Amino acid sequence: MAPRKGSLMSVRTDVKVLDATIRDGGLCNNFEFTDEFVTELYKSNIKCGVDYMEFGYRASKNLFDQKKFGKWKFCSEEDIRSIVGDNVSDMKIAVMADVGRCDFKEDFIPKAESVIDMIRVACYIHQIPAAVEMIEYFHNLGYETTCNIMAVSQANNDQLADALEMLGQSSVDVIYLVDSYGSLYPENAGNLAKKYLEIGEKYGKAIGFHAHNNQNLAFANTIETMSYGVSYLDATAMAMGRGAGNCAMELLLGFLKNPKYNLYSLLTFIENYMLPLKESGVVWGYDIQYMLTGQLNRHPREAMAFTADEKTDYCEFYKSLLDNF
Amino acid sequence: MAPRKGSLMSVRTDVKVLDATIRDGGLCNNFEFTDEFVTELYKSNIKCGVDYMEFGYRASKNLFDQKKFGKWKFCSEEDIRSIVGDNVSDMKIAVMADVGRCDFKEDFIPKAESVIDMIRVACYIHQIPAAVEMIEYFHNLGYETTCNIMAVSQANNDQLADALEMLGQSSVDVIYLVDSYGSLYPENAGNLAKKYLEIGEKYGKAIGFHAHNNQNLAFANTIETMSYGVSYLDATAMAMGRGAGNCAMELLLGFLKNPKYNLYSLLTFIENYMLPLKESGVVWGYDIQYMLTGQLNRHPREAMAFTADEKTDYCEFYKSLLDNF
Repeated sequence: MAPRKGSLMSVRTDVKVLDATIRDGGLCNNFEFTDEFVTELYKSNIKCGVDYMEFGYRASKNLFDQKKFGKWKFCSEEDIRSIVGDNVSDMKIAVMADVGRCDFKEDFIPKAESVIDMIRVACYIHQIPAAVEMIEYFHNLGYETTCNIMAVSQANNDQLADALEMLGQSSVDVIYLVDSYGSLYPENAGNLAKKYLEIGEKYGKAIGFHAHNNQNLAFANTIETMSYGVSYLDATAMAMGRGAGNCAMELLLGFLKNPKYNLYSLLTFIENYMLPLKESGVVWGYDIQYMLTGQLNRHPREAMAFTADEKTDYCEFYKSLLDNF
Repeated sequence: MAPRKGSLMSVRTDVKVLDATIRDGGLCNNFEFTDEFVTELYKSNIKCGVDYMEFGYRASKNLFDQKKFGKWKFCSEEDIRSIVGDNVSDMKIAVMADVGRCDFKEDFIPKAESVIDMIRVACYIHQIPAAVEMIEYFHNLGYETTCNIMAVSQANNDQLADALEMLGQSSVDVIYLVDSYGSLYPENAGNLAKKYLEIGEKYGKAIGFHAHNNQNLAFANTIETMSYGVSYLDATAMAMGRGAGNCAMELLLGFLKNPKYNLYSLLTFIENYMLPLKESGVVWGYDIQYMLTGQLNRHPREAMAFTADEKTDYCEFYKSLLDNF
């Protein structure tokens, strides 16, 4: 087994923490955060030492009706600047661009004119060639780039080896392992991470991890993959994110030993903004229906419908999942 | 690093699952479960393939007023028999006896006359000699025994080595690693487990793990320690247990590959009994205050008081914890 990089007491200066609350959390409330919420999160992230804050998607306005979503589905330069000004801070700004769901040649300006630092390209494994085209385009505009290969727990080994090789040869800066279905255990998340890290070492790429909490393993998988050398770590305030949610920022910041990270502002933010959001009826987080789709390595869509319908007949739900394998 | 025992696909026939819902969960509701609840849990556990069911404590009636606690704090033979009869099942019955809080020489009858199969002796590390005295007594009565060394995250290495050696030389059947404060990470839980397993191998003892979910790591730590050879695994329905709760039985049974284990009855039990229990106001489970005491490797008592007071000023709470280090 590959050795761990440092111990539980080590300061790992290669680690970068990315707050994805608005982006992945936006999937829970249709991206309808108040400006106050986003501004306070931005300020809190800076105080907590967070390295990147992802503001949302830059989705195609041709494919998605702007009237039907909050503005963070589109993340215009103006909307981001209305929160961060010129972002006079050490924290970098990221947005996500989905392969096939954005107009990348129209909607992005050169980095020199943009407040955005990093563009994260999300794709399924069969879309890697399309992702690479976008990555090269963004790279040439001057942005840092990542490629987030979603649903990797359903990719086969040959596909994954090909995909990682293609990304290794691209201009991408960070390759993300994404446990979209929350189906990975620390043991196989660690083994997958080692494959990514091998390519990362060969081609000089950093590796990231994005967790989902279907089996209450989001934090565990994050620190397990980190221990082998993964360095870009996604987390969200109170684990807000689609379905079972993500890795909780408060767990991650409390774990990391680099003194630049601290919990104080985040705890205040949670108290003042996350609890009211929960109380307002926005739903996310670990629950039995998400555990079941995670255990079965499936998209959480049926669990999300079960949640939306406020159902609790778990045994019937489980049987229906097994009937539709 | 010691190799893992089998893979994620292996059937580990040495694994034994122990349901501690009534015992550790009883700490949340003063052991006041209805007979119907306990009976249905017993039936569900049998159907799910659970190996041991812990009914509660056999606490001293001299030290504790029977009028002030539910009957599962005392676990009389008659009360257990009123649920299980002669326990005509493959599942074994366990009770817990705390060092210093039970009258072990008065309150236990010979195994041949008892419906109980296993007595779990819980102690802090300085009480190991007292625990060994109890273990020998119970062993001579014919019971299986365990020793559950609590709060091991605060024991020093020399103490622990001594304690494990003493237990190795005793008649105990199973030595439990207990993460009372929920402060262990998979990496150090795994390292601790290896120390226990070394003694286990030397003296022919099985090793168990009992988790707390302060940092959302109860399940992760359970399967990590299991992967190195830990075989007695504690879990509770819906993770019910003191403070942040334990390892969720539904996560564990969904993970184990032995076909004797299945989820159906448990999901029905959760729906019919655990959800109403939660709705009735019994409180347990992961929350930020427990995360903070877990991160700081402290007893959850301040977090329990914070919870009981329905407070949410996490930042003030965190500061108060740091002030009283």
